[in-house]
Amino acid sequence: MAPLRSAVKEYGDLIRELKEKGAPKVDIDRAVIELKARKKRLEDREFELAPKEASFDRIKLEDLLKRRFFYDQSFSIYGGVNGLYDYGPMGCAMKANMIALWRKHFILEEGMLEVDCSVLTPEPVLKASGHVDRFADWMVKDVKTGECFRADHLIKNHAEKILQDPKTDISTKNALTDVLAKLEGFDNNDMQEVISKFNFKSPVTGNDLTEPIAFNLMFPTLIGPTGDFKAYLRPETAQGIFVNFKRLLEFNQGKLPFAAAQIGSGFRNEISPRQGLIRVREFTMCEIEHFVDPNDKKHSKFSKVSDHKLNLLSACNQLAGKSAETVSIGKAVKEGIVANETLGYYMARVHMFLVKVGIDPRRMRFRQHLSNEMAHYACDCWDAEILTSYGWIECVGNADRACYDLQQHFRATNVKLTAEKRLDEPKTINVTEIVPNKSAIGSKYKSDSKKGGEIDLTKELFSVKRYEKKIHVEEITPSVIEPSFGIGRIFYSVLEHSFRQREGDEQRRFLALPPMIAPIKCSLLPISSNSELDPILEAVRDQLVEYEISFKLDDSAGSIGRRYARTDEIGIPFGITVDFKSQEQPWTVTLRYALTMEQVRLKVSEVGSVVSNLASERINWQNILETFPKFEQNES
Amino acid sequence: MAPLRSAVKEYGDLIRELKEKGAPKVDIDRAVIELKARKKRLEDREFELAPKEASFDRIKLEDLLKRRFFYDQSFSIYGGVNGLYDYGPMGCAMKANMIALWRKHFILEEGMLEVDCSVLTPEPVLKASGHVDRFADWMVKDVKTGECFRADHLIKNHAEKILQDPKTDISTKNALTDVLAKLEGFDNNDMQEVISKFNFKSPVTGNDLTEPIAFNLMFPTLIGPTGDFKAYLRPETAQGIFVNFKRLLEFNQGKLPFAAAQIGSGFRNEISPRQGLIRVREFTMCEIEHFVDPNDKKHSKFSKVSDHKLNLLSACNQLAGKSAETVSIGKAVKEGIVANETLGYYMARVHMFLVKVGIDPRRMRFRQHLSNEMAHYACDCWDAEILTSYGWIECVGNADRACYDLQQHFRATNVKLTAEKRLDEPKTINVTEIVPNKSAIGSKYKSDSKKGGEIDLTKELFSVKRYEKKIHVEEITPSVIEPSFGIGRIFYSVLEHSFRQREGDEQRRFLALPPMIAPIKCSLLPISSNSELDPILEAVRDQLVEYEISFKLDDSAGSIGRRYARTDEIGIPFGITVDFKSQEQPWTVTLRYALTMEQVRLKVSEVGSVVSNLASERINWQNILETFPKFEQNES
Repeated sequence: MAPLRSAVKEYGDLIRELKEKGAPKVDIDRAVIELKARKKRLEDREFELAPKEASFDRIKLEDLLKRRFFYDQSFSIYGGVNGLYDYGPMGCAMKANMIALWRKHFILEEGMLEVDCSVLTPEPVLKASGHVDRFADWMVKDVKTGECFRADHLIKNHAEKILQDPKTDISTKNALTDVLAKLEGFDNNDMQEVISKFNFKSPVTGNDLTEPIAFNLMFPTLIGPTGDFKAYLRPETAQGIFVNFKRLLEFNQGKLPFAAAQIGSGFRNEISPRQGLIRVREFTMCEIEHFVDPNDKKHSKFSKVSDHKLNLLSACNQLAGKSAETVSIGKAVKEGIVANETLGYYMARVHMFLVKVGIDPRRMRFRQHLSNEMAHYACDCWDAEILTSYGWIECVGNADRACYDLQQHFRATNVKLTAEKRLDEPKTINVTEIVPNKSAIGSKYKSDSKKGGEIDLTKELFSVKRYEKKIHVEEITPSVIEPSFGIGRIFYSVLEHSFRQREGDEQRRFLALPPMIAPIKCSLLPISSNSELDPILEAVRDQLVEYEISFKLDDSAGSIGRRYARTDEIGIPFGITVDFKSQEQPWTVTLRYALTMEQVRLKVSEVGSVVSNLASERINWQNILETFPKFEQNES
Repeated sequence: MAPLRSAVKEYGDLIRELKEKGAPKVDIDRAVIELKARKKRLEDREFELAPKEASFDRIKLEDLLKRRFFYDQSFSIYGGVNGLYDYGPMGCAMKANMIALWRKHFILEEGMLEVDCSVLTPEPVLKASGHVDRFADWMVKDVKTGECFRADHLIKNHAEKILQDPKTDISTKNALTDVLAKLEGFDNNDMQEVISKFNFKSPVTGNDLTEPIAFNLMFPTLIGPTGDFKAYLRPETAQGIFVNFKRLLEFNQGKLPFAAAQIGSGFRNEISPRQGLIRVREFTMCEIEHFVDPNDKKHSKFSKVSDHKLNLLSACNQLAGKSAETVSIGKAVKEGIVANETLGYYMARVHMFLVKVGIDPRRMRFRQHLSNEMAHYACDCWDAEILTSYGWIECVGNADRACYDLQQHFRATNVKLTAEKRLDEPKTINVTEIVPNKSAIGSKYKSDSKKGGEIDLTKELFSVKRYEKKIHVEEITPSVIEPSFGIGRIFYSVLEHSFRQREGDEQRRFLALPPMIAPIKCSLLPISSNSELDPILEAVRDQLVEYEISFKLDDSAGSIGRRYARTDEIGIPFGITVDFKSQEQPWTVTLRYALTMEQVRLKVSEVGSVVSNLASERINWQNILETFPKFEQNES
């Protein structure tokens, strides 16, 4: 690894030097592309060496998710649409549980103002936000058929194919390896250069390709029948919050800081989506916009999280070719690695949330954007990335967007989006005011006064007033700290991280989901179809209904072990079995924990409250083992 | 009322007679339009006479909803868009509570399969469902400016204006009154006739208008970059369920009946939306599709609801000019008023849900569609209608859609959307099979065999096999019973029905929302800012957080009465006040019920569990009055 690390550091140093010297932007950009290429080589190597769940097999997981209808491609009977997925009963319940937990963890615990805004968004709003002009990918078209390809994907596929061809000469190989490493940083000219140089054609027809064309990723539509009210499906929920800023501030009685949140759909017209739920055209987002005084980004609850440790991959470490480091968020903010307390507070809370929903903390990191990756308006940005079989996936963006968005909407509408800040003590300011001399203007421009037009500004037409003024409040445009969650990506990552196989039995795969997230909390299995067991079954069922526990009855004929395996597969954490011993007074059942396959025996009358407490994670399995007698059973 | 009723009955009888005689469709349609006009006159009169909340004032309610940000027009700072609304913190919480209750009442209690499908829907899907061809309204355009008007609205506005003009002669008045009454049943020709006859022009420019043009109400868009993948935003969530039928049936282990449900957004490109949340372009729907054997629409839980009483306005009663009648659903199904048990079961459950969320049962009815209003494929349809200041509003459609949708998607895709029904006993059927004589065909059409084309079917080319076969299962296309909820309309109706004013104090208006629906469950008011009360306040707050009760602290300086009024206004049902007596050991607080303004005193240690039970409606205020000592306070 050492040579790879120092190769990165070399370019990190070079870029710093170029910046200090005030070198031309084009030189810096070139160097950044090379830096990224070196970082990618380092990261690929690290990924190869990283500890993985040895048993993980994506095909097996995908088969399970399809077979038990967690989610599947939309409109399959019509041939399907890439990048669109339908969630079935299992996926839908699991996603709803994740969102309920999000709402509790963020909106309720932090007292946020939740809103639910329109998906349809008029063009001027997205013009102001920058999406109409900049939210685009490069594509190339088959000059004859018009078929479209995402330019970077086309280059990647072509390059990989040539590299795999044993007849390819070594210099072409080196050149293409270099292209692959740098591809992420390429602009349209860089890509056009590669396409020309290697003479890439349409992979379908072999025809020539156009130059890369920018394709806007928003779905366009028209509101109303006239055809001239252009709109888009929102690419993010954030803009809905920004345009409601005044109402929300007023709702909060004019006080800063406050946070607003929104859970809803976003849309992105990907050119050629792939990678399952990782890159889709329609997705659920959870976004928080925390509005704060730009000169005071402290957070009142920061001390509660300051000891919380995170894996941080800072821009500095990336430039130096170093790995992520585990640091407490308190230290990171103190040392200026993370820009401010509010951003740091959210990073810690995001981390806690991801762990709660079932992300393996060892496969999670916060990666800081390099200054050139960052949106031009942001001052600091840390992506919560999760390691999956697709590599490191950005799942939660945490950005300090400064006051960019509110200012843009102000510029577009001329509606002030500011807050009043009460000063600790009144401030005296010098005011210079131009006072028009109305009578002089009137007599000089009498006839023109209502027409407008230019006037010659001579001295006698105005006077200049200079005076001191005492002010008690100051008008400020708040900064915005934004944690933005891609729910589908987190959902998929949780499934990957919880997919396991039983030791010594490769065929028995299961999902070790946290109880709060599991789509169904409990299974109910009669050991036989003997009707003697029916009253007990009914009593258990009544308990589960009373405590509002979602459960699945499996009274099919299969062996108990086979039935357990079927429930384990869909992540049901707890299983209740009614057996022949159940009939002894007082009625009892066994309770099984899927993760460990351990069982205890407890009274039917206790079952509802015990499973309810387990399902909501108020107690854990260890508590159960300490309370109830263990029950041994052979599952095979 | 009597003459109005008999006027309706006259046409009801006439239509029945025409149908019996097999009169031409055009005559029947004419008669139906006249019938509807008469029904409308009857209904308008009934509406005038109906008992209303004398105090209701829509302007006052709308002012409250805007001021406290329940919801408001989207993108107002950009001038706003008609028919698009953003829900603020209060509306969002209330809507989320309604949806949570819906999920519990239907999905959990009935064991439905919830799905979450794509909003973006390819054109062929909506072509098959009939939406591409038939989901349209008539509009007219200004021939010069192209400005569009919904034809029926334009006629209505013109007619009303002319009717209000004292100079209008009596015969014109009569003619236009007749037009208004019949307008709902008009087709494009009828409307064109009125526009020509009365020489209606564009209300904006006075220019001529085009003939009525069908405007499809779906929002169009394009998926991917090529421009040839046409799609629409779904106009209903139902189609997502139908195209997943096979997966859902498999998930249910092949068994009928089962119900699937979906909660999500629908879109409708209204030509000129108005009436606030009643007619919008983007809305939340909750839809259930219950798949059932077409020959056995019994429901296993029907006996649990059969005594439940509903206000039914049957087609018969409508034709006879009669009002709605209160009937038990058991009787209604038995007498064939409601087509079958499953439809009846859902109507009862829908009624229970609407009452739970806060709809006044006296202002609710189920109106059966007349046979000509019904979608051509439905066999029975009952709209749950709610009486608001806009008149009777359709809020939940309950339709037996038969097997139309599944058959349409089968026709379009050739994918079988059927279920296997196990026969009680095997059935012997006669099979007639055509068996091609391959060798004869081969020798005759040898050279053409792969080309296709026509052949002369002569006897020697095939044989006919007739035999008996024993079958154990039968393939059936399930019928679909669909309750479909417009959440925004119910949301608005609940607000109207819960808007009250205090007796003797017109200015004190409040929302009497059911605790389960209220956006915030509890207020917390210290009687003074004296810091002695802080520890008690903190103890109460800890209890509320522990029990996950949403609350609003109001420690502002206003009088206690003024602060109560502010919390009453947003429908907070319970209020906790920390007063000076609170400090006596053991600490106590007062608990106030907004609806009655009654108060009791209870220990701080009891507050969490008591309010939690009240908020989830496990106990009611009467239980509280029986348990705790009453506390008298003057609120002014």
